[in-house]
Amino acid sequence: MDGELKELLTDLKTLKSSLPDRSHYALIEKMQSCLEHLSTTATSRPAQRTKIKDMSAQVVDSNPYSRLMALQRMGIVDNYERIREFSVAIVGIGGVGSVAAEMLTRCGIGRLLLYDYDTVELANMNRLFFRPEQAGMTKTDAAVQTLSDINPDVVLESYTLNITTVQGFETFMSSLRNKSFCPSKEGCGVDLVLSCVDNYEARMVVNQACNELNQTWMESGVSENAVSGHIQLLVPGETACFACAPPLVVASGIDERTLKREGVCAASLPTTMGVVAGLLVQNTLKYLLKFGHVTPYLGYNALKDYFPTMEMKPNPQCSNSACLERQKEYALAKPARDAAAKTKMEAEAPSETECLHEDNEWNISVVDDTDLQGPDVGKISGALPEGLIHELPSADEFQKPPVSEESANPVDDLEDLKRLLEALNAD
Amino acid sequence: MDGELKELLTDLKTLKSSLPDRSHYALIEKMQSCLEHLSTTATSRPAQRTKIKDMSAQVVDSNPYSRLMALQRMGIVDNYERIREFSVAIVGIGGVGSVAAEMLTRCGIGRLLLYDYDTVELANMNRLFFRPEQAGMTKTDAAVQTLSDINPDVVLESYTLNITTVQGFETFMSSLRNKSFCPSKEGCGVDLVLSCVDNYEARMVVNQACNELNQTWMESGVSENAVSGHIQLLVPGETACFACAPPLVVASGIDERTLKREGVCAASLPTTMGVVAGLLVQNTLKYLLKFGHVTPYLGYNALKDYFPTMEMKPNPQCSNSACLERQKEYALAKPARDAAAKTKMEAEAPSETECLHEDNEWNISVVDDTDLQGPDVGKISGALPEGLIHELPSADEFQKPPVSEESANPVDDLEDLKRLLEALNAD
Repeated sequence: MDGELKELLTDLKTLKSSLPDRSHYALIEKMQSCLEHLSTTATSRPAQRTKIKDMSAQVVDSNPYSRLMALQRMGIVDNYERIREFSVAIVGIGGVGSVAAEMLTRCGIGRLLLYDYDTVELANMNRLFFRPEQAGMTKTDAAVQTLSDINPDVVLESYTLNITTVQGFETFMSSLRNKSFCPSKEGCGVDLVLSCVDNYEARMVVNQACNELNQTWMESGVSENAVSGHIQLLVPGETACFACAPPLVVASGIDERTLKREGVCAASLPTTMGVVAGLLVQNTLKYLLKFGHVTPYLGYNALKDYFPTMEMKPNPQCSNSACLERQKEYALAKPARDAAAKTKMEAEAPSETECLHEDNEWNISVVDDTDLQGPDVGKISGALPEGLIHELPSADEFQKPPVSEESANPVDDLEDLKRLLEALNAD
Repeated sequence: MDGELKELLTDLKTLKSSLPDRSHYALIEKMQSCLEHLSTTATSRPAQRTKIKDMSAQVVDSNPYSRLMALQRMGIVDNYERIREFSVAIVGIGGVGSVAAEMLTRCGIGRLLLYDYDTVELANMNRLFFRPEQAGMTKTDAAVQTLSDINPDVVLESYTLNITTVQGFETFMSSLRNKSFCPSKEGCGVDLVLSCVDNYEARMVVNQACNELNQTWMESGVSENAVSGHIQLLVPGETACFACAPPLVVASGIDERTLKREGVCAASLPTTMGVVAGLLVQNTLKYLLKFGHVTPYLGYNALKDYFPTMEMKPNPQCSNSACLERQKEYALAKPARDAAAKTKMEAEAPSETECLHEDNEWNISVVDDTDLQGPDVGKISGALPEGLIHELPSADEFQKPPVSEESANPVDDLEDLKRLLEALNAD
């Protein structure tokens, strides 16, 4: 708009100078000042922040990453900047998915892939993220609009499609496989898939895709009465897949979509969805940046503030054939995994020759006490097995009544002890 | 802006018609189409939703309250619409407070009072809520801008002040006392105060105000390393106040504000702050709308997904004199509280004559077994205390070998039993 207003101003000046007389000057000057006012006040789009090439830890008000880079100084994360290398796919940009997308965007994630087929409605305004003026836009378009304003450094890819259709599933799969953002990456093109959908059918489709692609994912959900939710980590072959252990309650015998029929809707709260999104993205950050413990399953009961956890092994009778393949691969890779774990453990164990203290004023050393102890150590009297002698005096020796100075030279004894200690230290 | 563009178009038409020849028509027509394009695309402010007089449970896409009113149909909340009667004060509109304000706004809270003295900076963009184009605005102004767009039904009052100054504290107190929003309300003018500040001094000020006003409040906090947080309910006189049990770790011997000194900042994450805000507002909703259990203290350890809870009684040696006064009042009101609790329990207890099951095919009734049981019940032989007889045959009777048909009439026995049961049911 700024450009158009400037062009109008130029045109008006041209017009003014080319007019034969001054009779229209007053009107033209009025239009001129009106245009000038418009160009100073009007902004078709609010001022955005510019892209930032490198994440900096500098503590200035203008640095959007200072509070995140501080995680390194606090010892929580080793290398926060690695977050720019990661791609996360979010399926379902509703009450949980949109907030998860905003959190990852504000954390400076490298790339977000967003999937949804729905449009924003005023009826969604009881959850965070979407704004009333976005009503009517597709959720993906509205999300890209908001997220790119918040952080232009994040690469956003949006897919306005239904993954449960044949065509939608194909596009979903090929977008997950696409490795152009990070060609050197192992496996497929994303680091994690977050399922934030609101129905069983879509969850089973995400499960199918991730089992086929051997892609780790996290599932999330909120109950229809709005007061409980959960997140779950799914590693194909290693943990239960969504088909191994389906939820305890699913719509049975009826089309799930009838739950959305005219006149009936599920309850929802911005609180429950915000908490679930927060727990989901927190575990995403822990998983990607390797800190803390990634929880395999975490429930949230809002009425009681109760947070159950559990772990689920894969089901050897799982109905999903791709899951069974991943289970087989996981079992076959066990020796390699064990070896790697052993190597890692050895690398992390402190070296035996490592010097713990630079100074050693008292000449203290740790000795292997297996040489010094035996069944007969400490006995003053009694025959030792052949070839063995007492190297050190027994503790009992010191409990004897002190001998007179004439009969023993304590200085010589101390000198002997010192020599003995030195000999031991020399080992 | 729309008006200005229309005026410009009119002026241009006037100019066109008053020109002596057509030599300038091309230029004027170009300007005309440019202005027309501007007026169709330009909107100085996006379309807002209009205010809604009554909350409706109608399930249509245009109803922003349908998913909240569904909480009634789901049996979670008795009367959701009551939320419009409540006033909540939020002190500190930062990473937790701003998200708490947005959640309450989307829930349709009656009135929000917002307190902060700070301005929005790009360095705040790693948390939810504020947008980069708001950098430089006060947090209160930016919050009112965003929140009134989201839900124009909420009455927003913003106070750009520091509650730890003398003048700020006075304004804070008088704003809490103001009952013009709901003059019939007992106590002061707000239903709950949420403390979302980031320092000990401000928490002590909120504590002082709430103890003086006998105002229930909730405290929240997030650790400096960004990976833990807590919420806490404080009811003056009934629970520990903030001075009764100060946090285990506080800045000691140094000015807290030096924590914000040049070059050093605390870490923060949108996840932890979103979770804490979600838990805080969830407990706010439970407290205001009377459902579920309001948790007295809830911690959040993000590294382990561990959520400790506890309860804290007030400290009879508390250093805060207003707290001691509230403790005294609470102790004095114990008899009235006990009587009210008894009345409530009696009102809620099921009536003894209440019929649990309409049909009773087997004529089963529950009898008071104190009449039937005693030290000698079940003994066939042996004298009973004087005046007592066995009303029912002992279970031992049925373990006796069956008697012959000649010596007893089983039909008669069954008839006797039936009469006995009927007599009992008639009681």
